[in-house]
Amino acid sequence: MTSAIADLSLTELTELHSNLRAEYDELASRGLKLDLTRGKPSPAQLDLSNALLTLPGAGQYRDEAGTDLRNYGGAQGLRELRAIFSDALRVPVPQLLALSNASLNIMHDVVVHALLHGLPGVGRPWCAEETVSFLCPVPGYDRHFSICEHLGIRMIPVDMTDAGPDIAQIEQLLADDPSIRGIWCVPMHSNPTGAIYSEEVARALVSLPAAPDFRIFWDNAYGVHHIWDEHTPPDIVSLCEKAGNPDRIFYYFSTSKINFPGGGIGLVASSADNIKRMKAHLAMQTIGLDKVIQLRTVKFFDGKAENIRAHMRKVAELLRPRFELVLNSLEREFKGLDILCWTAPLGGYFISVETMPGCAKAIVAMAKDAGVVLTGAGATWPHGQDPADTNIRLAPTVPTLEELEQTMQLFTLCVKLASIDKLLTQQ
Amino acid sequence: MTSAIADLSLTELTELHSNLRAEYDELASRGLKLDLTRGKPSPAQLDLSNALLTLPGAGQYRDEAGTDLRNYGGAQGLRELRAIFSDALRVPVPQLLALSNASLNIMHDVVVHALLHGLPGVGRPWCAEETVSFLCPVPGYDRHFSICEHLGIRMIPVDMTDAGPDIAQIEQLLADDPSIRGIWCVPMHSNPTGAIYSEEVARALVSLPAAPDFRIFWDNAYGVHHIWDEHTPPDIVSLCEKAGNPDRIFYYFSTSKINFPGGGIGLVASSADNIKRMKAHLAMQTIGLDKVIQLRTVKFFDGKAENIRAHMRKVAELLRPRFELVLNSLEREFKGLDILCWTAPLGGYFISVETMPGCAKAIVAMAKDAGVVLTGAGATWPHGQDPADTNIRLAPTVPTLEELEQTMQLFTLCVKLASIDKLLTQQ
Repeated sequence: MTSAIADLSLTELTELHSNLRAEYDELASRGLKLDLTRGKPSPAQLDLSNALLTLPGAGQYRDEAGTDLRNYGGAQGLRELRAIFSDALRVPVPQLLALSNASLNIMHDVVVHALLHGLPGVGRPWCAEETVSFLCPVPGYDRHFSICEHLGIRMIPVDMTDAGPDIAQIEQLLADDPSIRGIWCVPMHSNPTGAIYSEEVARALVSLPAAPDFRIFWDNAYGVHHIWDEHTPPDIVSLCEKAGNPDRIFYYFSTSKINFPGGGIGLVASSADNIKRMKAHLAMQTIGLDKVIQLRTVKFFDGKAENIRAHMRKVAELLRPRFELVLNSLEREFKGLDILCWTAPLGGYFISVETMPGCAKAIVAMAKDAGVVLTGAGATWPHGQDPADTNIRLAPTVPTLEELEQTMQLFTLCVKLASIDKLLTQQ
Repeated sequence: MTSAIADLSLTELTELHSNLRAEYDELASRGLKLDLTRGKPSPAQLDLSNALLTLPGAGQYRDEAGTDLRNYGGAQGLRELRAIFSDALRVPVPQLLALSNASLNIMHDVVVHALLHGLPGVGRPWCAEETVSFLCPVPGYDRHFSICEHLGIRMIPVDMTDAGPDIAQIEQLLADDPSIRGIWCVPMHSNPTGAIYSEEVARALVSLPAAPDFRIFWDNAYGVHHIWDEHTPPDIVSLCEKAGNPDRIFYYFSTSKINFPGGGIGLVASSADNIKRMKAHLAMQTIGLDKVIQLRTVKFFDGKAENIRAHMRKVAELLRPRFELVLNSLEREFKGLDILCWTAPLGGYFISVETMPGCAKAIVAMAKDAGVVLTGAGATWPHGQDPADTNIRLAPTVPTLEELEQTMQLFTLCVKLASIDKLLTQQ
């Protein structure tokens, strides 16, 4: 297959389909059981953090200031933990909170707070509005969209580019629709496309005219997850400040994909005022964080920001061959065929592909029938509905290279089969 | 002082006041710095759990079923952790969730869920109601009241008895006021009175006619915190079921006052339907708990419910002399004086005293001037306002016996001085 599939005759297409189908059937008969659904660390990646299982260590329960971390108190997180992440995130320590378990929880809580209490500059809570809408760059992260769906927030898709969401679209939408109160952003190695937001996109997001309680949910989940070169995210908190919209930003970060998922520390940065409000809100919910766990993470990195980078280089060594395998396979099988586009991320956990219109669901179903579970087609769109049915998220972090080889063999076959099916029905 | 102070003549009162004032001045000059504000474990009590600092231990990251607990997943909590608490709480494992950090967080979340989504059996969310009210047995726990205040829920005080809240009052209030949607209960060694809810009170709470979305927030924070004999709490989940109101109960528990505060596991039990709803709601907020931390707690108790009881007996050994000291001091100084009543709890973290009307704030202020910080007067009432200004919560768990001796010496003086002040202004 060296020419574009669309250029083939009906007879050629039918013959090709039949050959590919035989290959598919042979693979399907092997009883594969592979799961590429979620962006999870592999066991080998988790092993890199096994020191956590015995940390903070015997007799280790005081912070630098001598406070007994075993007891109540400390709702903003350990200062020394915030200090090491302050460096990676380019956020001043006092504007950074280190909370528990999951940054998703903090995102949900901020939306809930706005729904029930409203945000500064606006008299009434979001739940008193007829409609509250969020801009959703697509393809995007399903868990962001679930929060909106669960809380009755309308979602407006916005196209993604390699440098972040399409700013011209956003400008128009903000001008036309006063119900827009938020936007979901994954600024570094975006989930799933791997896009890195440009400084220009960041500057536009912080300064475009919008409702006073419009908020950027800046989920920098892959901020230090570089697989090739290191990149520095736009300094969003200070950009917001300079644009005269200091409260517009909620900047999230998490160690879930650095150490153990679920055992991560969720972090949030924002303006001094927003952080003050958050602290008051958090004080209603807890009398103190699990600070021993925070100390565990400080000890793991020996209190040094550069050790996070060193650790992430080890993670990159595990991820790089996996990403290379997937990208090489796509290049080998689809270059010049005009039936599949894909992104080539420089970090993060995903590769995003665009099929011919109306093929994504069929491909995922076909792969599943042969024992390879992919992220559901549509998951990267609000309400799980990809209108063109083209996007599939590949999550190559967990399988071994051997498993990934089998997966890609099957996946590329499924893409070709579904594409030919589509072309045949169109003829 | 062996006769009731109220029986003394003006001259006798004035003379007594002068003598006591001299004693107070002498104590105040010692530069005491003592803090009895909150129910915290002492360092010695925390030491009992220091094994947690190196648990779960090298290579320990799988549950009984072999699942790798370092990765995502497991939103209901480790089965073996729920199993050991299922026994202590008399709740079946499938109806018990073991979540993170703090049970207060779960309580807040349940109220938020009802505000934004409503509860089964009722079409609309609480935030669409003109008024939502909660019954608040007083004196009670300030953090419960803060949640209501923060979320705009009206609070209706209900008198406490030694066997729980006054059921006749509750029956009348529920019949008269359809806005009542909840009640806060601390059923075992109640904060601050130490009351143990009787089976009769529990039966009334689960069966009284009420709104279909009326909920009992059953915060069994001191469920295994017996200082003398062990007690078994009413089997509230099954009582609710038998009364035909299975969804009426949210039963909370936490290990914060068993092991490390903040490092605790928050637990919640309820009907199968409520738990199913909670799981769906939690799935919006997190992709998985810190299960390594949960394993840490399982290992600490060696997976055995009886080890929780054994651990709590060690805690009781630390608390018993502290409680005895306070109770003996009150007995010695106030028996027959008619100016102070107090509770004699059989467990928990507090002793509650009732002063003469209008004296509590003065006593707390006087103690503070001499270097002893008590829980703020009024803190045990909604909005921090004790209408009769009589209740003070004593929290004797942290100070050493020597510090407690000094504290009680000062406290009893302050009570006497404030009481005589009050009597003198009334004459």
